[in-house]
Amino acid sequence: MTPHSGRIARLRASLRHSAADSLLVTSLPNVRYLCGFTGSAGMLLVTPREAVFLTDFRYRIQAAREVRGARPVEYPARAWDAVAAQVRRRRIRRLGFEPQHLTFEAHRSLAERLAGTELAPLAGAVEELRATKDEGEVVAIRAALRAAAGAFAGVAGRLAGRTERAAAEELEARMRRRGADGPAFPTILASGPQAALPHARPGGRRIRRGETVIVDFGARRDGYHCDLTRTLLPGGGEERARRIYRIVAEAQRRAIAAVRPGVPAREVDAAAREVISRAGFGERFGHGTGHGVGLEVHEKPNISSRSEEVLAAGMVFTVEPGIYVEKYGGVRIEDMVLVTPSGCEILSRLVPKIRP
Amino acid sequence: MTPHSGRIARLRASLRHSAADSLLVTSLPNVRYLCGFTGSAGMLLVTPREAVFLTDFRYRIQAAREVRGARPVEYPARAWDAVAAQVRRRRIRRLGFEPQHLTFEAHRSLAERLAGTELAPLAGAVEELRATKDEGEVVAIRAALRAAAGAFAGVAGRLAGRTERAAAEELEARMRRRGADGPAFPTILASGPQAALPHARPGGRRIRRGETVIVDFGARRDGYHCDLTRTLLPGGGEERARRIYRIVAEAQRRAIAAVRPGVPAREVDAAAREVISRAGFGERFGHGTGHGVGLEVHEKPNISSRSEEVLAAGMVFTVEPGIYVEKYGGVRIEDMVLVTPSGCEILSRLVPKIRP
Repeated sequence: MTPHSGRIARLRASLRHSAADSLLVTSLPNVRYLCGFTGSAGMLLVTPREAVFLTDFRYRIQAAREVRGARPVEYPARAWDAVAAQVRRRRIRRLGFEPQHLTFEAHRSLAERLAGTELAPLAGAVEELRATKDEGEVVAIRAALRAAAGAFAGVAGRLAGRTERAAAEELEARMRRRGADGPAFPTILASGPQAALPHARPGGRRIRRGETVIVDFGARRDGYHCDLTRTLLPGGGEERARRIYRIVAEAQRRAIAAVRPGVPAREVDAAAREVISRAGFGERFGHGTGHGVGLEVHEKPNISSRSEEVLAAGMVFTVEPGIYVEKYGGVRIEDMVLVTPSGCEILSRLVPKIRP
Repeated sequence: MTPHSGRIARLRASLRHSAADSLLVTSLPNVRYLCGFTGSAGMLLVTPREAVFLTDFRYRIQAAREVRGARPVEYPARAWDAVAAQVRRRRIRRLGFEPQHLTFEAHRSLAERLAGTELAPLAGAVEELRATKDEGEVVAIRAALRAAAGAFAGVAGRLAGRTERAAAEELEARMRRRGADGPAFPTILASGPQAALPHARPGGRRIRRGETVIVDFGARRDGYHCDLTRTLLPGGGEERARRIYRIVAEAQRRAIAAVRPGVPAREVDAAAREVISRAGFGERFGHGTGHGVGLEVHEKPNISSRSEEVLAAGMVFTVEPGIYVEKYGGVRIEDMVLVTPSGCEILSRLVPKIRP
């Protein structure tokens, strides 16, 4: 039994209640989740009885090594011809596809070649499965977190006097030395007024002693990601910054306290948002409270005011409220939690929060 | 005049002959090309008289700083509502969209909200412009190439005894020290039998003295990429490897000699393919001969047997024939060329080819 072997079966079970019982999986993280392929070009056709993996020349050998639970087929240069041939051979009358991944053009290419097959959009079928992690996945996420947290501990106290870019590069290098395959995403490291940009990129700016620094970072290991943010207020910062920090920290504490199976995800968001709004910063918290993390940095569940998802044991997601004041700076605190049968475990306790 | 200012005008001119004179640009590299925005969420609506850039809360400040030639508008959480409102306000009757980028789902969301507007697929409108580089773009690509080539020169002679992964990491670190913002893509560094996998990832395998090593690497700088491959045969390799190397090198030489404005791209591919086929390795060269490089690692023009593009001065692309023998190893040699009025300039002469 490989770790992937039950997943295609679970997908088939979920398709039984949907508009099609066959699915063409074109999202690469979904393909990887189901059959283990880690390359950059491949599709998986799942029918009630079979699973066929299609890739091109470049991945012939890699597919033979990696793919489990599906028969690898190499397609010639024209991918859609090959997919259509496989579908026709099996006389599939209704074929599900992933409408959030297939482009308009790819859908048209497929529809042209499959006149006798109805194409049915099945949104989120695999993502739904991926939202709940199995033990092996949690192990991989924990390993990524260990690499990220250990690396951060090594640089957090030594930022002043260095450029943002140099600090970010050292953080990424240290993650690699601790077993990460690389950063989960380009590190955000923003100091002083830059910290008001939620997605600032580290630049040539030299960090001054006593300045606020936001570091949003993560490691990738065996395909799994982690995502953490710390806001550093060296020397405790000035009173205004300390006040904002305390509000965000309290918002995060309340949100995490709300996490347990059966709770609507939007209630976790509401718990954080209420604290920040009550303090008068509601308009300065313009993003959702969190997102699932796994084979992608952003995946299900979505922890926002518009989410319609309900938390379940095994879900792994971030809790990351923030307040951003233009021309002044910002504070964001982000940890990752695992939903347990009775509540949640904070997976990123390892990184000490530097409190004001 | 910013470097971007002429681009929206050129796009408008090209749209005059197409199915719609307004275009919703959703591909991020296309958005960046047209208005300068470098973030990860944003769209550009170009009409005959206006250009409107839409982004979300996270990029409010960054958009105000970066975007030129378009008016930035922040949209609330529901992006498609905001886009539809902008389109309706301008009474656009036919709106072009990018069918190779817009997902099926996004198209449906837009169509639902724009009952009175016809949506017209306009494939490759911006990519067409991007295929021909202006002077500033060539400068950026040259800078990326200098970083990559200099870094490679520092590690090429010192591979034996190290793991593939350690060698790849040092190469990437050296590119950064030479001014790269990062690698253009995850470095491929494959030794011995691994070299038969065109897209192998560097692993824990220790490189032995005398073994073939393929290194496919590139740097990214100011958004522009480069892409190079060298096959190292330390000590000259064995006779069979030397023979394969000579065939690939000759194929590359012939392909480069075929490059000049007005030549169909497929003739460049044919020039390389003929050499390899004549030598009996036609089936071992399963990919195209090259691809454009710029804001993306793979862009127009496509240099393959099925390409319908014609070369023009200002195009920048790779020439990278290869031969891969399963369980034995492979050879690929990749350089970048700039099409000049009379032929081409090899942009990557800087990296010495280690010849057998």
